[in-house]
Amino acid sequence: MTTQQIVLAARPKGLPVSDDFRLVQAEVPEIKAGEILLKGMYYSVDPYMRGRMNDAKSYVPPFEIDKPLNGGVIAKVLESKSDQFKTGEVVIGNFPWQTAFISTGKEARKIDTGLAPPSYYLGVLGMTGLTAYFGLMYIGKPKAGETVVVSGAAGAVGIVVGQIAKIQGCHVVGIAGSEEKTNLLTTEFGFDEAINYKATTDMKKAIAAACPKGVDVYFDNVGGEISDAVIKNIAFHARIPLCGQISLYNSTEIPMGPRLQPMLLTRSVLMQGFIVSDFKDSFPEGIQQLAQWVKEGKLKTTETIEQGFENLPQALLGLFKGENTGKMIVEA
Amino acid sequence: MTTQQIVLAARPKGLPVSDDFRLVQAEVPEIKAGEILLKGMYYSVDPYMRGRMNDAKSYVPPFEIDKPLNGGVIAKVLESKSDQFKTGEVVIGNFPWQTAFISTGKEARKIDTGLAPPSYYLGVLGMTGLTAYFGLMYIGKPKAGETVVVSGAAGAVGIVVGQIAKIQGCHVVGIAGSEEKTNLLTTEFGFDEAINYKATTDMKKAIAAACPKGVDVYFDNVGGEISDAVIKNIAFHARIPLCGQISLYNSTEIPMGPRLQPMLLTRSVLMQGFIVSDFKDSFPEGIQQLAQWVKEGKLKTTETIEQGFENLPQALLGLFKGENTGKMIVEA
Repeated sequence: MTTQQIVLAARPKGLPVSDDFRLVQAEVPEIKAGEILLKGMYYSVDPYMRGRMNDAKSYVPPFEIDKPLNGGVIAKVLESKSDQFKTGEVVIGNFPWQTAFISTGKEARKIDTGLAPPSYYLGVLGMTGLTAYFGLMYIGKPKAGETVVVSGAAGAVGIVVGQIAKIQGCHVVGIAGSEEKTNLLTTEFGFDEAINYKATTDMKKAIAAACPKGVDVYFDNVGGEISDAVIKNIAFHARIPLCGQISLYNSTEIPMGPRLQPMLLTRSVLMQGFIVSDFKDSFPEGIQQLAQWVKEGKLKTTETIEQGFENLPQALLGLFKGENTGKMIVEA
Repeated sequence: MTTQQIVLAARPKGLPVSDDFRLVQAEVPEIKAGEILLKGMYYSVDPYMRGRMNDAKSYVPPFEIDKPLNGGVIAKVLESKSDQFKTGEVVIGNFPWQTAFISTGKEARKIDTGLAPPSYYLGVLGMTGLTAYFGLMYIGKPKAGETVVVSGAAGAVGIVVGQIAKIQGCHVVGIAGSEEKTNLLTTEFGFDEAINYKATTDMKKAIAAACPKGVDVYFDNVGGEISDAVIKNIAFHARIPLCGQISLYNSTEIPMGPRLQPMLLTRSVLMQGFIVSDFKDSFPEGIQQLAQWVKEGKLKTTETIEQGFENLPQALLGLFKGENTGKMIVEA
């Protein structure tokens, strides 16, 4: 059987370009006993993938040149020689960017398409939702009445963070990059305030106005100057979960900025970098809680779904231009 | 009764100078019922005092112009109209930089001069020791076999941190500013290695050599470029208690440096600013543990004692030139 693949053609310097990817054809061999043949349905496109395009030590191994990229994929079982899976079942796992591929079944987890549409398992009920949940609840530890600021608030993780913070009884302020996004945050997702950083000249002042008692929790998805402005408004004993630094992912050297330590020191602030797998022992708890909030209608989701497997690279590049609202997904 | 006072004459810009202080005479009134008259014996001189010379929001209120500075002082009761204190008893408290002063007794705590010399209560058995204890044990959480790096290692806090880390079974590396200090750390205080940053051109490489498995806990007393070099060697899931930033205290604007967040993010690192009073509910536990280690001979101390009340400003300025080893104290 023939499959399409998207392979890494070159390691980007700075912002990735189309030529860093290549669409190729490959053969999928016959499956052996215990294996399943899968057809990709939905492909997750995430900011962290930029880091994997570099050949650098990080929490996940780098992509390899001339090999397909990989990530979270929802797939349907086309053929099974495993007694664990039947044809037609829908699974999730970390799979290659191919239209069809083989799995031993070890990486595949069946999903309940009765509870929510399959794509939700890449977003609010998947790694994205768990990232929001653990970063906010285990590091941010918001208390009712506190002020929570989320950057990249209209992104996949941010939109979940803001809603969970509202469920906790917090004053929630989102930062995003267009009027369309900030409107969506306040009208559809319950954020108390939202700041369009592209239309704001003095971010420090805008954040101070939205957060009169200071910022108790800053959930940071972006880094850079937006974070500098938030941290100037940070409250005593604040917590800063570091979830992403999308503003810096395309930097070719370590960017300079104001030194943080004096502010963190004089206000007894905690800053903690994390990756969702740091909390893997608590995944069952997180999944259960997120599913319950979704079921109760307290946690809504939004997705940007691009059509066509061959458009995966464009969708990834779009993340760095802020083209998505909520989870960015490609439907094959 | 006449007393000498050291008052803040001017708020320094950058490094403080002698003219920022003034020695004056004042009258101490007669004590009233419930009060005690105290004579200062030992005055604590600490880096954090630099921050209090600014008129800036911080964890302790700023010193006031034309008013005496204040800090940790060991004093003897000269006269008592309180049933809590007798003449001749020795107390500790936060008191003004005066040779004689009145207390209601509320700020005064009696010390046991049988367990250790009085000056120890300003150091290893006082706020200094507690700062080392809580920062290392509650934030750094060192495990046996891990690598702990301490900057400002020959300073009052650093020298206690290194010894506690050794008690925990860690590989301990100190950073200090002279050969005399680094020798002292390894020969007298049990540090495994010590790096003289003033004689080292490539700190990143020197730290890598001393910490082949990376840095699991970085107890930061200094900030600036030394910390940049340590953080380049930080291990996955490391903890960074931020205790001091002496290299930056005299900066007149927020200094620039490499942005930290990408490194903290990709290695799941925790950084936490603190002040010892964040842990005040646990002080009794900390004091008991430190006293026991001192008694058992596991925790040694070293002090730089300057003579003469009038030399308090010079002793404070000396801290920023690295003139002290261990706790800097002035004996009246």
